[in-house]
Amino acid sequence: MSNEKQVEDVVEETVDTEVQQEETVEESVEATLQTEIDQLKQQLEEQENRYVRLQADFDNFRRRSRLDAEAAQKYRAQSLVTDILPALDNFDRALQVNTEDENTKSVMKGVEMVYRQLVEALQKEGVEAIESVGKPFDPYEHQAVMQVEDEAYEPNTVVEELQKGYKLKDKIIRPAMVKVNQ
Amino acid sequence: MSNEKQVEDVVEETVDTEVQQEETVEESVEATLQTEIDQLKQQLEEQENRYVRLQADFDNFRRRSRLDAEAAQKYRAQSLVTDILPALDNFDRALQVNTEDENTKSVMKGVEMVYRQLVEALQKEGVEAIESVGKPFDPYEHQAVMQVEDEAYEPNTVVEELQKGYKLKDKIIRPAMVKVNQ
Repeated sequence: MSNEKQVEDVVEETVDTEVQQEETVEESVEATLQTEIDQLKQQLEEQENRYVRLQADFDNFRRRSRLDAEAAQKYRAQSLVTDILPALDNFDRALQVNTEDENTKSVMKGVEMVYRQLVEALQKEGVEAIESVGKPFDPYEHQAVMQVEDEAYEPNTVVEELQKGYKLKDKIIRPAMVKVNQ
Repeated sequence: MSNEKQVEDVVEETVDTEVQQEETVEESVEATLQTEIDQLKQQLEEQENRYVRLQADFDNFRRRSRLDAEAAQKYRAQSLVTDILPALDNFDRALQVNTEDENTKSVMKGVEMVYRQLVEALQKEGVEAIESVGKPFDPYEHQAVMQVEDEAYEPNTVVEELQKGYKLKDKIIRPAMVKVNQ
């Protein structure tokens, strides 16, 4: 083996070893960076998912709020209407007095006007008296307090109303108290 | 120069060169990875900021919704109350009829009871008549439709009420129409 050839071989071997060592160090740096990238990507994905979930919660809340507000608006008068009904019942009764007396007639005329105004104000807010006499008995709208047998009416029909019932829009505030034909 | 020393020198030089080349390549890979890391960190920060902003929007919306719902609840009866006031005015007037007639008295007694029931139902919802006669004139609660000079009263005092005013809780639904002493 020539002296030169010997030197070349040694050089090559040593270079390979040193380069390999350097490469190992570099590979480990790369791996660390890659790990960091993977972690960051994962964090980013989680954060994006959190955002999407929060957005969905927000949308749901907004929709629910709107529906709640609409329902509250629709039935806003319910509490006052419910409290007014007993006065309305007595009003109704007071107006059923029969009189021939002119003075009394005149007072009752004024009172009747007030009653009509009150009923109109309630109608404007969506309050309606429930129809009953002559209608088929409806357990949702009518409360049967008496049963009769009357051939003049169809079976299961309301024959008399004992107390007016009221609806607020599509909601029954108080069913009508009725006599029903069996 | 010894043979050995020669080999060492050559090895050193060659290793340096090769390692340098490797290092250049590695440095550019590292730089790319580092750039990606920086970008990901920036994206992550932006995404976190978006989340925080959305969270703040959501909190604001929730608070505003609650306040809106409370206000709607508080004044829910306003519309119906406003519509009922003209009936209440006429009711008031009908009850001011003076009569000695027993029949009429009896009817009016019934009607008075209805009136009281109605006023109570309104009170329960937070409706109150505004005090006026004898009170200092308050442009918020009273509407001056006439001015008089009356030494029996303090200046700037309400001396007569021409139409009742009403409040719904802390809100003036209709000011009282009054005569004011100059």
